[in-house]
Amino acid sequence: MSDAAGGLSYAAAGVDIDAAARAMKGVAQLVRSTATPDTLSELGSFGGLYRVPRDVASPVLVASTDGVGTKLKVAFLAGRHGTVGEDLVNHCVNDILVQGARPLFFLDYVGVGRLEPGVVEEIVGGIARGCRANGAALLGGETAEMPDFYSAGEYDLAGTIVGVVEEGRVIDGSAIRAGDVIVALASSGLHTNGYSLARKVLFDRMGLGVHDPFPGEDASVADVLLRVHRSYRQPLWPAIERGEVRGLAHITGGGLVDNVPRILPEGVDARFDLASWTVPNVFHVLQREGGVDEREMFRAFNMGVGMVAVVTAERADALIGELNAAGERAWLAGEIIPGDGKVVLA
Amino acid sequence: MSDAAGGLSYAAAGVDIDAAARAMKGVAQLVRSTATPDTLSELGSFGGLYRVPRDVASPVLVASTDGVGTKLKVAFLAGRHGTVGEDLVNHCVNDILVQGARPLFFLDYVGVGRLEPGVVEEIVGGIARGCRANGAALLGGETAEMPDFYSAGEYDLAGTIVGVVEEGRVIDGSAIRAGDVIVALASSGLHTNGYSLARKVLFDRMGLGVHDPFPGEDASVADVLLRVHRSYRQPLWPAIERGEVRGLAHITGGGLVDNVPRILPEGVDARFDLASWTVPNVFHVLQREGGVDEREMFRAFNMGVGMVAVVTAERADALIGELNAAGERAWLAGEIIPGDGKVVLA
Repeated sequence: MSDAAGGLSYAAAGVDIDAAARAMKGVAQLVRSTATPDTLSELGSFGGLYRVPRDVASPVLVASTDGVGTKLKVAFLAGRHGTVGEDLVNHCVNDILVQGARPLFFLDYVGVGRLEPGVVEEIVGGIARGCRANGAALLGGETAEMPDFYSAGEYDLAGTIVGVVEEGRVIDGSAIRAGDVIVALASSGLHTNGYSLARKVLFDRMGLGVHDPFPGEDASVADVLLRVHRSYRQPLWPAIERGEVRGLAHITGGGLVDNVPRILPEGVDARFDLASWTVPNVFHVLQREGGVDEREMFRAFNMGVGMVAVVTAERADALIGELNAAGERAWLAGEIIPGDGKVVLA
Repeated sequence: MSDAAGGLSYAAAGVDIDAAARAMKGVAQLVRSTATPDTLSELGSFGGLYRVPRDVASPVLVASTDGVGTKLKVAFLAGRHGTVGEDLVNHCVNDILVQGARPLFFLDYVGVGRLEPGVVEEIVGGIARGCRANGAALLGGETAEMPDFYSAGEYDLAGTIVGVVEEGRVIDGSAIRAGDVIVALASSGLHTNGYSLARKVLFDRMGLGVHDPFPGEDASVADVLLRVHRSYRQPLWPAIERGEVRGLAHITGGGLVDNVPRILPEGVDARFDLASWTVPNVFHVLQREGGVDEREMFRAFNMGVGMVAVVTAERADALIGELNAAGERAWLAGEIIPGDGKVVLA
């Protein structure tokens, strides 16, 4: 730990600058794979440079920072680090999509106790895949080696997305009126919310391991819990471009109950018809085995709905057809009714 | 932990959505205090909205993500959470300033085991103070409650800054020529680098506590180690606007030795005259008590130099006078000589 004379070095204190430099080289190619025509900087400059796209007359930047939450714990248990980065990017992309923005670039933060060969590359591989799929450049990031902060084999992961929208085309829900309808887009699973509760039910109560079969599914617990958070950027973009989407809510922490009210103007409720969809098996298992109250379920989990779009009743069928043709599962899930800003589950 | 019927709730799993909502209210006023005329969103929208400033003809965005590193451990030991946010903002501001960019907005990420009343507000208070001082809007952020990730009373903190520069005015060091001179700007202390090594020397080797007097200083160990990372945005801005700065290097992890080469064009070295400044006491104590090799010291720590500016020899005196008049300690620290891209400490 010390040199022969008893002197300390930076490496002896748990930080290996050269290992960090090597890891950087490993991710450089991944970063380059995400470059767009407006990406002006190379990896290694102090800040990343990105030209404001010239096709937007009055550009408004839309930015969001988020994490993956304790879904990471499942990745640690399963030893699979290749998809949490994609979860992170898709979560962030959806968070700015709901305001009508398309992604420009992304930056990541990885806090780790000790750099293990390959793990950071695996994480960044997922981030880069998510960036490419959404047309975002991976413009920068920070991998911080923090001895004594994180347990062996663990890390935290956060990311920031910046996108752009024409000033007159920001979607904020203010155009929503009673009589509009709610189109739901299916989630792929838990996305990135509710993992503390889910882990408690599955691992502590049920005593399952990540490699055990998930009850009622032809997949392991890890497979089900690590399903990648869907990005709705591609399927929803045509409708956003046509200007027909009056409101979008990304169903994250707080579920339908807390997220949909964020876009409702005064004087209306969002009424969901629970008979319009079948809540996926994973949520039924969690509810039954955890003895969780149904209202609590709709606050802790997305219950099968990853995104909600509000459009006029006339546009609903065409939009649902377009989304399903694009590979989504979308359906008419409810309507906007007179009220005081809440979600009604009926 | 469970309700009377043995059912689990989200709160029982360690996540308290209502506590998070209360903490959000506590920081809302802080966030509003940072708003600029181009800030278009209120707290609580999915993404933060910021108008691209209209006074920049060909805007290029410059973005950077960073953390505070293990300086946080000192904050934990001292129970002082009010300045690490300012460290984070200033670090990020300097990282984009070196490319000629002024800050637009900032987003923070706080990962915490359990929300303790007041702590998140204290952290965000420091972030907001840093944002106001640098003219950056605090546009968004994420406070993630992650049971089992962080030890009691601990957290991790990362941030992302986005700034803007006119495309033709990006500073990248390519204009640097042999014969130019190096102006150094004093750091306030360790800034945000080298804390793993510093903690090992001070706490493990010397057995000091955070409230003990720091050897050779009229201040405690906590006072010395928590001195706030300086932002050089205000003092350097006039020279940047005049277009006379050929290169800027923010002295962070890797010190002068690794950071200055990042801006050197081919064919030159940066030669520092070590006699031109007195290395501050804190670094002498760390070197002596840790038995750390001098070259290693210049890689692990900033050694009293927080920022390096390269200008033509004719401009040096006027710039140094301007910086000192603005309250900085600045001096002629060396020159650019023919070479192969390295730092020479002479």
